[in-house]
Amino acid sequence: MGEKVNAPIGVFDSGVGGLTVAREIMRQLPGESLVYFGDTARVPYGSKSKNTVCKYSRQIVNFLLTKDVKAIVIACNTASALAREEIQRQVNIPVIDVVEPGARMAASSTKNLNIGILGTESTVKSGIYEKYLHRINPEITVVSKACPLFVPLVEEGLLEDRVTEDIVGRYLHEMKEYEIDTLVLGCTHYPLIRGVIGREVGKDVKLVNPAYETAKSLKELLREKDLLAAGESETRYDYYVSDGEEKFIAFADSVLPCHVKNTTVIDIEAY
Amino acid sequence: MGEKVNAPIGVFDSGVGGLTVAREIMRQLPGESLVYFGDTARVPYGSKSKNTVCKYSRQIVNFLLTKDVKAIVIACNTASALAREEIQRQVNIPVIDVVEPGARMAASSTKNLNIGILGTESTVKSGIYEKYLHRINPEITVVSKACPLFVPLVEEGLLEDRVTEDIVGRYLHEMKEYEIDTLVLGCTHYPLIRGVIGREVGKDVKLVNPAYETAKSLKELLREKDLLAAGESETRYDYYVSDGEEKFIAFADSVLPCHVKNTTVIDIEAY
Repeated sequence: MGEKVNAPIGVFDSGVGGLTVAREIMRQLPGESLVYFGDTARVPYGSKSKNTVCKYSRQIVNFLLTKDVKAIVIACNTASALAREEIQRQVNIPVIDVVEPGARMAASSTKNLNIGILGTESTVKSGIYEKYLHRINPEITVVSKACPLFVPLVEEGLLEDRVTEDIVGRYLHEMKEYEIDTLVLGCTHYPLIRGVIGREVGKDVKLVNPAYETAKSLKELLREKDLLAAGESETRYDYYVSDGEEKFIAFADSVLPCHVKNTTVIDIEAY
Repeated sequence: MGEKVNAPIGVFDSGVGGLTVAREIMRQLPGESLVYFGDTARVPYGSKSKNTVCKYSRQIVNFLLTKDVKAIVIACNTASALAREEIQRQVNIPVIDVVEPGARMAASSTKNLNIGILGTESTVKSGIYEKYLHRINPEITVVSKACPLFVPLVEEGLLEDRVTEDIVGRYLHEMKEYEIDTLVLGCTHYPLIRGVIGREVGKDVKLVNPAYETAKSLKELLREKDLLAAGESETRYDYYVSDGEEKFIAFADSVLPCHVKNTTVIDIEAY
C-alpha cells in the first residue's frame, strides 16, 4: 500500500489544454506526483467521432498504466464526454473526468435553473452535460453551444482581441435569450478567454471552470480510497507528448507555475 | 500495361481540403479514376512535426498501394513540404505534390520577382517554397507568412465575413511592404477565401492556386510515362477517410461537382 500511495497520478489531454487542469491539481494537491500525456500529434479531439476518441483514449490509458499510475484524470472535456465509461471499464484504478465535477458545480451554483454550456462540437453533440445535470435536477434547463473557433483563437494568442470579442458575441448571442445565471467553460482552453466571455455575459452570470472542481473531486476521491500521497518521497512531474516537445514546453511554461523538464515524445499508436 | 493505365490515381490529404485538388483533376482529366484518402482522424497536419507528418503519409501511401494506384498525388501542402522526398523513396510509381507545380507557376507569373507565400505553420517553417523558387531563379525574393486561423475560419464557413477580413488584413499587413506581384495560396483551404485575400492585396497581385497547376503537371507526367487512362473502362471515384464519413460527405458535396458515394472509414494506423 505504501508504494501505491506514492505512485503518480496520470493526467491526459488531447494536447496542451489539460495543463490548466494539471496546474489546479498541483495547487490543490502539492504532495502528488503527476505523469501528464498530451496527444499533440492527433490534436484536436473536439471535431472527432466517439469511436476515434475512444480508441485514442484507450491507447493513452495503456501508456499511463506502464507508468504505474494510481489514478487517471481525463483532463479533456471531449475525451471525458465520449470515452469516460470505456476508460472506467478498461482499468481498475479510480478515474476522474472533468465533465461530472463541472456539471455538479454548475448545478449547485444556479439559482434560476438556467445553465449554459460552451464546448467543442463533439462535447456538445454528446449531450453529456445535460445528462449529468438532469440526473442531479431534471428541472434544469440546459442551453449548449459548440464554439469551434475558440481553441484556434486561444492558440493564436488572441486572448484579448476584437476578433475574439466578435466571435464570442456571435456564439453567445442566442444564449442570452435564455437568461442563464451559470455558464460552464466546457473545454480546457476556454478559461484562458474568460475575460472576454465574462464581459459578454455580464457579471451576474457565474462562470464555471471545471478544472478547479476536478482537482477538488480528485482530492476527495484519493482520501476516500486511502490513496493520498504519504509525503515521504519527492514530488515529480513528468510530461509525455506524441509530437513536438518544443511547442509543448513553450505553452506549458506560459501556463504552469514551474518550468517543464522531462518532456519525452512517444509513439502513442504503439500502445 | 493495358491494365495499369486504367488503374486509379491515389490522392491524399490531411482531411477535406485536398478535395479542391481532386476536383481540378476530375476537370482536367475526366477519364481518370481516383482513390481519395482524407486523414480526418488526425487532421490538421499544419502544426505538426516533420517526423509525424512523414509517418502519417507513409501509412496513407501503404494504404493507397493496396488499391493498386498507378500514381500518387500529395494534395496537402504540408505533406508535400515535409514528406515528398520520403514518399518518392517509398514507391516506384510517379509522385506529384502540390508545392512544386505551385512554385513553378509563381515563378513564371512574377514580373518584379517578389513572391508571397501563405501557408500553414509547418509549410512555412519548412522553407520548401523558397527552395523550389530559388532553384528556378535565385533572384526571386520570397516573403512567407503562416496563417493558422485560415483553416478554422474556412471550416466554420466564414468565407465572406468581417472577422475573416480582419484576420486576412493582419496576416498580410507586413507582406504589403514588399510589393509582391504574385501570391501563392499554399494550403488547400485558402482558395476558398480567395475573394477576401484578393481584395486585401488588390487586383494587381496574381493569386496562384496550386491545385490547377498540379492537375496540369499530373496530366503531363501521365502522358510522358504512357499512363493516361485508355478510356475503355468507366471512371470511378472512391473515397476513404480515417474518421467521420458524414462530415466528410457534407463538405465534399459542397466542393465537388458530383455527389460523393462510396466513402469508407478505415483504420489508418494499421497500415
